[in-house]
Amino acid sequence: MNAPGPATTVTPPEQVFDWLDAEADRRAEAGLVRRLRPRGPEARELDLAGNDYLGLARDKRVAGAAAAAALRWGAGSTGSRLVTGSTELHAELEHQLARFCGTQAALVFSSGFTANLGAVTTLSGAESAIVTDKYIHASLIEGCRLSRADVAAVAHRDPAAVAHALATRRKRRALVVTDSVFSVDGDLAPLGELSRVCREHGAALLVDDAHGLGVLGAGGRGAVHEAGLSGEPDVVTTITLSKSLGAQGGAVLGPRRVIKHLVDTARSFIFDTGLAPASAAAALTALGVLRDEPELPGRVLGTARALAERLGAAGFTVSSPDGAVVSVHAPGPDEAVAWAARCAEHGVRVGCFRPPSVPDGVSRLRLTARADLAESDVDRAVQVITDAAPPGAR
Amino acid sequence: MNAPGPATTVTPPEQVFDWLDAEADRRAEAGLVRRLRPRGPEARELDLAGNDYLGLARDKRVAGAAAAAALRWGAGSTGSRLVTGSTELHAELEHQLARFCGTQAALVFSSGFTANLGAVTTLSGAESAIVTDKYIHASLIEGCRLSRADVAAVAHRDPAAVAHALATRRKRRALVVTDSVFSVDGDLAPLGELSRVCREHGAALLVDDAHGLGVLGAGGRGAVHEAGLSGEPDVVTTITLSKSLGAQGGAVLGPRRVIKHLVDTARSFIFDTGLAPASAAAALTALGVLRDEPELPGRVLGTARALAERLGAAGFTVSSPDGAVVSVHAPGPDEAVAWAARCAEHGVRVGCFRPPSVPDGVSRLRLTARADLAESDVDRAVQVITDAAPPGAR
Repeated sequence: MNAPGPATTVTPPEQVFDWLDAEADRRAEAGLVRRLRPRGPEARELDLAGNDYLGLARDKRVAGAAAAAALRWGAGSTGSRLVTGSTELHAELEHQLARFCGTQAALVFSSGFTANLGAVTTLSGAESAIVTDKYIHASLIEGCRLSRADVAAVAHRDPAAVAHALATRRKRRALVVTDSVFSVDGDLAPLGELSRVCREHGAALLVDDAHGLGVLGAGGRGAVHEAGLSGEPDVVTTITLSKSLGAQGGAVLGPRRVIKHLVDTARSFIFDTGLAPASAAAALTALGVLRDEPELPGRVLGTARALAERLGAAGFTVSSPDGAVVSVHAPGPDEAVAWAARCAEHGVRVGCFRPPSVPDGVSRLRLTARADLAESDVDRAVQVITDAAPPGAR
Repeated sequence: MNAPGPATTVTPPEQVFDWLDAEADRRAEAGLVRRLRPRGPEARELDLAGNDYLGLARDKRVAGAAAAAALRWGAGSTGSRLVTGSTELHAELEHQLARFCGTQAALVFSSGFTANLGAVTTLSGAESAIVTDKYIHASLIEGCRLSRADVAAVAHRDPAAVAHALATRRKRRALVVTDSVFSVDGDLAPLGELSRVCREHGAALLVDDAHGLGVLGAGGRGAVHEAGLSGEPDVVTTITLSKSLGAQGGAVLGPRRVIKHLVDTARSFIFDTGLAPASAAAALTALGVLRDEPELPGRVLGTARALAERLGAAGFTVSSPDGAVVSVHAPGPDEAVAWAARCAEHGVRVGCFRPPSVPDGVSRLRLTARADLAESDVDRAVQVITDAAPPGAR
């Protein structure tokens, strides 16, 4: 065989991954080691960390629909959506999602992550420019990297910066990409202004409404619907089935020709196993609950605002919640981890976001509101978070 | 606002996606339009298209475990694996997967697609070379594109070509990436030789064993186990939970330090909602069935061989099945679609692979064997496929 390449000695098999240890040491020094903490079936803690905004994951109707679908359709979809992985459940879910959100069509993916990959890559390409808010979700960033497009990431929530990037682009075709509710701080993109800028420059608009569906807009129809952009011919929305709808999966919503294009060309759709029938059925049932109980989104928002106001009054640096997410700044990553751990010790589970999960390098606690939280839960959460705060947090 | 860019006139909103129609026309001319065909809950056709190799998706134990888990744990995992999305079910599944396959550790992803993205990107990087078989699965290719590594795709099943690429690489670190069973033709990678080449050149080996688990190796432990490479310090394996295990999801198996590295750095793990409890429970139960019924994989292989031999004897160009997949060449994409449609009319569902889902441009029928097929099913399948064959198929 050939001689080894630039290395003068060949790395032995047991040392091939030694570089991972060196990287792990660097992460440990920076306070960036993550640990999985498997939870039990019973919710022993007050959960302010998950994305089950409407409390539907454990709703008996939703969980019951998942169980019934597993028994009726099987545990898995058995193949790609284009082979054996499309059931009538998937088709009905797509029909109802499009109807609820007011778009021509929808396409269900196995996750929001793969939905975003599919939407970004197939709606751009080497002949296209992409302009993104610099704080978009990681899955959209991965989509941009895969797209072969000219990508410009501009200042956060800044339509003028988007306009400038569009005006100076080198490709005729352009796609503007943004989250609606940004997942770290819960702040809202200026969707109306972004749409106007897109139209002034002949660009399409792709909005990740993962944190908007079920929380914002009339009856929880999402931030795109609230901005009057649902069903517009130049707007495409992605959502997840795993947040307000309590299940698993993602979807792309938009004009019919966009959805057909995704079916034919989205690699994260074509080369992936279809969503499990239980998850499709759960999302479909959750959508029905949301339609029947349009007051749920208002409860989430009310709780989020109460959390933010009271923590702000206690002296913390708190984000202004446009959706269900409230973030509280921590002095550093180690302090954030310790703070979240002390909250957990006192029965309140909060999220802890550190680099690289935060776009601006600021570590923080991340709290999420739920429709099924009582006022006493908010009281308790504020008390525990305040008592557990590290020096320098206020 | 700024003037529009290179375009002299601004594209109106309703024309922003006109280019999709032009692309759709081109696909239609090339015979490459795809259509979703949602199926009902009852299996009315003989299914030779899905990847449910052991017939476990509808097994009462497996589907029952999914249903019970949905009721006990909820329909969704409610968050990222690092926040609220890790349950004791996920931890137990990871423990049992590693134990069954003989690796130190395992990490469950929401799909095989995201598992492959995570493994390729985090085990390579800008400081690394990647050498791949040119026929690897699309999700591995996407991982390579995201990796920022120097990527060389070499001839199919060619260890000498891999050795040459490793010998001439410009980066010290290297990762060799291959499928074990290639998904289109069912042919097997020369894993033993690839491992030797990797060791001669100080490279790590990443194997996608999606179509090997449950079909190859002692008791279905997969192609990596069969090659004696499971548990080796320089080998990482990815699998799906959606094929032989009848559920949904994917996993990465390997040395403990690799799994820790993935938890800390894999963006398709960190920024994705955890697998639904129902799917985790189904995969866990299916793994138990496979352990208790080690004869299942042999039945799949026997059926695949019978299908291949009889279709070959009938004069078709048939792949030599090393796993559960058998492919039959078609004269062209339109003929392949029509052939598969005629089979479906006669009650036999077969896969139809066309560009870009085939690496070599050859359209084909793709048949998959299952452990629960009877001899009479094989008779019927061969008869229907033969009767439905287009001119030029033999």
